[in-house]
Order: sequence, then structure tokens, then C-alpha cells
Amino acid sequence: MSDKRIAGPEIERLIQLLAKVPGLGPRSARRAALAMIKKREQLLEPLAAAMSEAAAKVVVCSNCGNVDTADPCSICTDPRREDATIIVVEDVADLWALERASEMSVRYHVLGGTLSPLDGIGPDDLTIRALVDRVSAGAVRELILAVNATVEGQATAHYIMGQLDGTEIRITRLAHGVPVGGELDYLDEGTLSAALRARTGF
Amino acid sequence: MSDKRIAGPEIERLIQLLAKVPGLGPRSARRAALAMIKKREQLLEPLAAAMSEAAAKVVVCSNCGNVDTADPCSICTDPRREDATIIVVEDVADLWALERASEMSVRYHVLGGTLSPLDGIGPDDLTIRALVDRVSAGAVRELILAVNATVEGQATAHYIMGQLDGTEIRITRLAHGVPVGGELDYLDEGTLSAALRARTGF
Repeated sequence: MSDKRIAGPEIERLIQLLAKVPGLGPRSARRAALAMIKKREQLLEPLAAAMSEAAAKVVVCSNCGNVDTADPCSICTDPRREDATIIVVEDVADLWALERASEMSVRYHVLGGTLSPLDGIGPDDLTIRALVDRVSAGAVRELILAVNATVEGQATAHYIMGQLDGTEIRITRLAHGVPVGGELDYLDEGTLSAALRARTGF
Repeated sequence: MSDKRIAGPEIERLIQLLAKVPGLGPRSARRAALAMIKKREQLLEPLAAAMSEAAAKVVVCSNCGNVDTADPCSICTDPRREDATIIVVEDVADLWALERASEMSVRYHVLGGTLSPLDGIGPDDLTIRALVDRVSAGAVRELILAVNATVEGQATAHYIMGQLDGTEIRITRLAHGVPVGGELDYLDEGTLSAALRARTGF
């Protein structure tokens, strides 16, 4: 069974590492490894090179917490983006998702997680202090707290609002409602109730 | 939207390449890239190294068609495997699947596909000639044709049997039947009918 040696240790190690990638399990890691080996020049070699390059060059932006190959990142240094609005997100993945979805050309701030006392994650483990400093610098008019609609996300939003108490800045959050293309009878009651309360005219 | 530059070109290229890996799509490639970047030392760097090593070392076994880091491969050179039985498969993935599933310690032969006249794939595009040569060498007693239960797979099996006409070798195929753990009412009629015909005693 599994103690039989099928392929060389190099291939086994590749499969083991691929199985740790989110979205791939043990079975799909084997499929992926085999596909890469078969497409050595189109896939395996370019991917190995791209990973080496990313490993050597990717840094965390010291201003906003984004990951990029430059510090400050390409969003922070983009002169076409307006400085008046910062969208605050928990994770870089949220930043990417908002950039894909949004027409807004604004700045971001990546918190690096949410407050979670039970897990020992306090304000100093997130980039909240840096966010307050960015707001204090003066150019920011609106902070969009695009944290997840979870208990931890909302607690983090309230903590940030408390830290900015007394400033003139406008603090907003994402609207709750029916997902575009979503069917009503699959929605949870909380979302449906929020969508009803926030109903708009045609 | 998508023309906005979110991250450096190195990260974009990594995502693009990851999206070509079977099992990952555009969305999961972004998730995978981000996870790798966050786990640079545990995942990104080892994976880049493992891929480089695989790209440099993996070869196709000139005897059986398996992929490995040695030619002949570690299955062909394994002295503990019996030479009397060869399992013939379409693809290396099938070889791996059978090795995981089976207690048999035998040899393999990877055809590299199936006969498919419409796609221009004839006997010379597969390793059928090499298979006949291996059988002619004399040590083989049984050939298990573990090709897929598709029209192309069965046509390929029949072609191979024709090539070996007149030899004393025993040629077998995998049993058809109910998958272990499978529920009868989800099975297609062909499988169910084959399982009924091949019924066994308790």
C-alpha cells in the first residue's frame, strides 16, 4: 500500500508540498504534480521560477499592510488614487476582492486579522495603531470599515471607531442585503431582514 | 476593474501560472498564491525548490513509460517485484492509483493514451510496440489490461490482444461491478447489469 515506493523522493516531496496548498488535497496534489511533470516547459519550470522570484521579492507594505514586490506597495504609491478614502480590510485577500469588484480608486489598510481575545489577538497584533497614524496625518476624509460581517469583524470595527472618537472623519461600512443573483429562499433570515429594512425605491 | 494594478507583476504571473494547474481555477489560484506568500518559508520556498528539482530530474522510463527521477524507473528496477505480471495502464495517474489500491507487487506498462483514429492517435503514438517486446522477452505470464472502461480503452485493449495473438500469455481485465461503498440506485444500468451477471457466492 502506501509504504511501496511509486516514484522518486523528489516527486513524493512535490506532492506532499502541493497537498498543503489551499484548494488542493492529497488526491488533487497528485493530479497537479503529474500535470506539471507532463507540462515541464509550459508549467513546471515557469512556476518554479515564478515562485522563486515571488519568494525573493515579495514584501509587506509598511504603510498599508498589502503584499507586493515594492515597499511602499504599488497601491500606496499610485498617484492616481485619491487619498481621501481608505478602505479598511482584515486580509490582503479582501483587498484583492474589493479591487476586482470596485470602480473606486482609493487607498487601503490591511489590519492583518481581527481582535480575538480568546486567541490572544489584541490591538497591538493588528495594524490599528498605523491606521490611526494614517488618519491623523490629515488627508483622510472617509474610512470604509470593510471587515467581515462576523462577531470578531464587528468588534474590531467598533474598537477602531473608539480609537478615532473625536476626529471629524466619516466612518462607513458595507451595506447588508441580498447578494446580486441570489435567491431569497436560500438566504439566512438576518440578511433578508437587513435587506428589507434597507429597502430602496426603484 | 481588472486593468487596475493590484500587486506587482511577479505576483500576477504567479497567479496566472497557478490558475493553469488542474484543480485550481482563477479564484483558487489567487487564494493559493496568497497563502504561499504568507507562508514563504514553510511553503513558497520549499515548493519552488521541489519544482526546480523535479523539473531538472524527472524523466520518462524508457522501459515502462512511468515518470520517475531514474531511468529505468524505481518500479522497473525493484528486485522484489515479480516479473511474471504486467499491468497495462493508459496513464501514469492510473499506475499511481493502482499502486495505492493494490497489494500486488508487479510491473507496469504505461501506454501513454488510447487508440483514437479521429484524433490521429495510432499504435505508433502509444508504447504498444515496446509492450510486445517486453512480452516477447519471455518472463511475462499475465498481462492485466487495466485500461479505462471507455470505447477507446476497450478498442486499445482489443488491439493489444490482437498483437499478442499466438502467444501463450494470459490476458485479463479488471472486473466490472458495484463500487465498494456505492449505492445501487446511483449506478448506471450497464454497471449494475455487469455486476448482476458477475455475481458471486457469500
